[in-house]
Amino acid sequence: MNKENYTLIMDLYELTMANAYFKEGKKDDVVYFDMFFRKTPDRGSFSIAAGLSQLIEYIENFNIEEEQIEYLRTLNLFDEEFLKYLKNLKFTGDIWAVEEGTPVFPKEPIVRVRANIIEAILIETMLLLSINHQTLIATKASRIVRAAKNVPVVEFGARRAQGKDAAIYGSRASYIGGCIGTSNVFAGNKFGIPVIGTMSHSWIQIFNDEYKAFKIYAENYPNSTVLLVDTYDTLKSGIPNAIKVFDEVLKPNGYKPVGIRIDSGDLAYLSKQARKMLDDAGYDYVKIVASNSIDENILKDLRDQDACIDMYGVGERLITAKSDATFGGVYKLVAVEEKGKIVNKIKISDNPEKITIPGVKELYRFYDKTTKKALADVITLYDEKIDETKPYELFDPIHTWKQTAIINYEVKKLLVKIFENGKCIYKNKTIDEIIKNKNEELSRFWDGVKRIRNPHRYFVDMSKKLWDMKHELLNRYSVRGKINE
Amino acid sequence: MNKENYTLIMDLYELTMANAYFKEGKKDDVVYFDMFFRKTPDRGSFSIAAGLSQLIEYIENFNIEEEQIEYLRTLNLFDEEFLKYLKNLKFTGDIWAVEEGTPVFPKEPIVRVRANIIEAILIETMLLLSINHQTLIATKASRIVRAAKNVPVVEFGARRAQGKDAAIYGSRASYIGGCIGTSNVFAGNKFGIPVIGTMSHSWIQIFNDEYKAFKIYAENYPNSTVLLVDTYDTLKSGIPNAIKVFDEVLKPNGYKPVGIRIDSGDLAYLSKQARKMLDDAGYDYVKIVASNSIDENILKDLRDQDACIDMYGVGERLITAKSDATFGGVYKLVAVEEKGKIVNKIKISDNPEKITIPGVKELYRFYDKTTKKALADVITLYDEKIDETKPYELFDPIHTWKQTAIINYEVKKLLVKIFENGKCIYKNKTIDEIIKNKNEELSRFWDGVKRIRNPHRYFVDMSKKLWDMKHELLNRYSVRGKINE
Repeated sequence: MNKENYTLIMDLYELTMANAYFKEGKKDDVVYFDMFFRKTPDRGSFSIAAGLSQLIEYIENFNIEEEQIEYLRTLNLFDEEFLKYLKNLKFTGDIWAVEEGTPVFPKEPIVRVRANIIEAILIETMLLLSINHQTLIATKASRIVRAAKNVPVVEFGARRAQGKDAAIYGSRASYIGGCIGTSNVFAGNKFGIPVIGTMSHSWIQIFNDEYKAFKIYAENYPNSTVLLVDTYDTLKSGIPNAIKVFDEVLKPNGYKPVGIRIDSGDLAYLSKQARKMLDDAGYDYVKIVASNSIDENILKDLRDQDACIDMYGVGERLITAKSDATFGGVYKLVAVEEKGKIVNKIKISDNPEKITIPGVKELYRFYDKTTKKALADVITLYDEKIDETKPYELFDPIHTWKQTAIINYEVKKLLVKIFENGKCIYKNKTIDEIIKNKNEELSRFWDGVKRIRNPHRYFVDMSKKLWDMKHELLNRYSVRGKINE
Repeated sequence: MNKENYTLIMDLYELTMANAYFKEGKKDDVVYFDMFFRKTPDRGSFSIAAGLSQLIEYIENFNIEEEQIEYLRTLNLFDEEFLKYLKNLKFTGDIWAVEEGTPVFPKEPIVRVRANIIEAILIETMLLLSINHQTLIATKASRIVRAAKNVPVVEFGARRAQGKDAAIYGSRASYIGGCIGTSNVFAGNKFGIPVIGTMSHSWIQIFNDEYKAFKIYAENYPNSTVLLVDTYDTLKSGIPNAIKVFDEVLKPNGYKPVGIRIDSGDLAYLSKQARKMLDDAGYDYVKIVASNSIDENILKDLRDQDACIDMYGVGERLITAKSDATFGGVYKLVAVEEKGKIVNKIKISDNPEKITIPGVKELYRFYDKTTKKALADVITLYDEKIDETKPYELFDPIHTWKQTAIINYEVKKLLVKIFENGKCIYKNKTIDEIIKNKNEELSRFWDGVKRIRNPHRYFVDMSKKLWDMKHELLNRYSVRGKINE
């Protein structure tokens, strides 16, 4: 079942262009593409890169099958020679990417592709889709987890996810972003994410009597009893019945109840009342789990009102990144090779923020050697060297008169080579290694940059050489006219 | 590749409850669940039901494999007897559902399940996920297509979709909702959706010279030339070069250019200027395609400003339903069978809109016999009969003093039996049949109900018998207290 070859998740224009390049004899032309994004969702400062593993999987399995060639033939758009070429096509180029879990900023190249033109354009859709989706969710999870401070957050979103993959890989990305577990058993099994869950309202309804329902649950799971207390009335029925079951079923048999869950009503008020009732009954160690359309903003408000919540279950607003549900990564041509020489390419636009940064580039992160904190990221041309023993001159790419020298720093190259001549030379990180990488990197950013609302600006600059080249191309290609022409 | 068994896309609590039911000897208890939703996204009146085909596929393939049982065993939550039971478990119950493409309203049962308790709860997540996702996207597509009036809309969203499935089934749902095609080749092949696409900016950049890039494209696709005109400057470079290619490459050889595409800038202004330039050059038949973060609101504004656009390419805001990215379908216990007798179940909540409608129900749509327009939907108990020869008394479920008699009507039962004793007895509709069903049903709603902003209210009422039963249960189960207790 479900044996599907996903290679053809492509936009048609990739194939029509590829066919025409093929016919024009350009199939062996070598080109460079960058993936980057223009803004972090929810006005955040950085995004958490994720999805590389799925991109690797796609590229390693790239294979257009006979049945799919047959379909393409029916479109009457493609030459037979091209279709024959497609049938045997594998990706043979090079790919560099930022590792999963790395905080990344707008405009930075987070994936770089060097390949022949046909291979480079045919992977566009899945490259973007893989990174866009998981980066979106990892970034959202990171926001929610930062808002929750030390209170753990569990992902409960599968039922509201945008398709199976969104449930599975959304769960993975949430875990990378900082959630401590998921309700999704498939994802738990596939990625080794801890799975969490207890009961739904139907459990209570089935037994008619809430006390009886709780009692039977506690008898079945005496070591992991978490009771859902809002089916009829949280304070007048749910919590008193829960306490009665703790007293009568668990305590006398030497078991410790784990928690209660509240899934509706005013979570701030109810959790404080619940805390008091539990404490008064001698259950100050029993945890209060809250769920119900929670996100980072609601979480902040709950904290402001001193809600007594020990764990959050977060569903739809995390798994769809509801408040800003798309991650706008794009894939743009930045250079071609002509007789082995790199020729830089730019795309102009009426919207200045849509103008691309041309050239084959590297991405460096500068850290202060003493505090170990990240100072700035710098995008350079691929062949620039950074001499850590000398001050490095930063300048603002917009307000170019603003200049700062960085001293006493160390740099890290963020783009890592993943594919070489079509072969994956990167050892996929385990999900725990990805999380470790993320935690280490995040700890090196100042709190202001990590602020959820109005974050402090982090510098992403261009090297002087790159800036000059970009402006030379801009001058060459921009069309000049009179404003009232 | 990608041979995955998705059965375990479940929330853990379904399995912990199932295990406990099993141990309590309740595994053969028969229960009824309804799926319904509480509000249509974007404050619309109705949603377009979709996703049933994928639910059917899930249920027909339901099969927990040995490797998955092994994983469940490692969780130390489940009895061996239960795990053995799971290994051979198939769905053996009954399912009714509203057919795909049907407009549906909040509170209506759109899926009804009758099954033993374990099967009923284990399918919850995938039932919700399948219907929630595609209904969300079909509803969004329908809104966008209605806003576009007679201008065709094409779905271009794959790269921004939340995972592969979201791209594939989002494309399907968009087509059901009214799009005329997709850029997604995989979806085109899988579902027979027309695929559409021409070139990206990189095509222009590769050739350096925009004129040359257009010329080569036109030579390769003389029958389907659509040129992307905004790489450098739409009015000063793109359109003049396009016209030059139409004049020099296509016209002399007897070909007719198809269109131009604008992907940035002020689409209202640019499209009007482009129209004028094309008309003046004798290309009044050449179509103008527009894309760039379009949704129903931008589309309305473009129409208000008399934009000259002949086709819309809609991407991220459709494929993620960005303005309201979750469809909140829920799955609630509504009845159990005790010794063959149906016992109705209710869930109370502090939030009145979260109180469920108990009972095993039918959903009827009343149409005026003369105008053929839909008048109201009525939710009844399953065993109520509606005699079309007699007036039917409607009454508002909130303002119960509001009563109206419907005369001269015909009714349609909207829930169709899909599974009987675990066997699918429903002949899956082709996507074209689904669209035909949708178009027919939509044509039977008044324009006011189809309005995108502030739609006219459509009546969804309960039968008197159902209303009485619900209120009897409410009185029985609601917890009474003093307001200041």
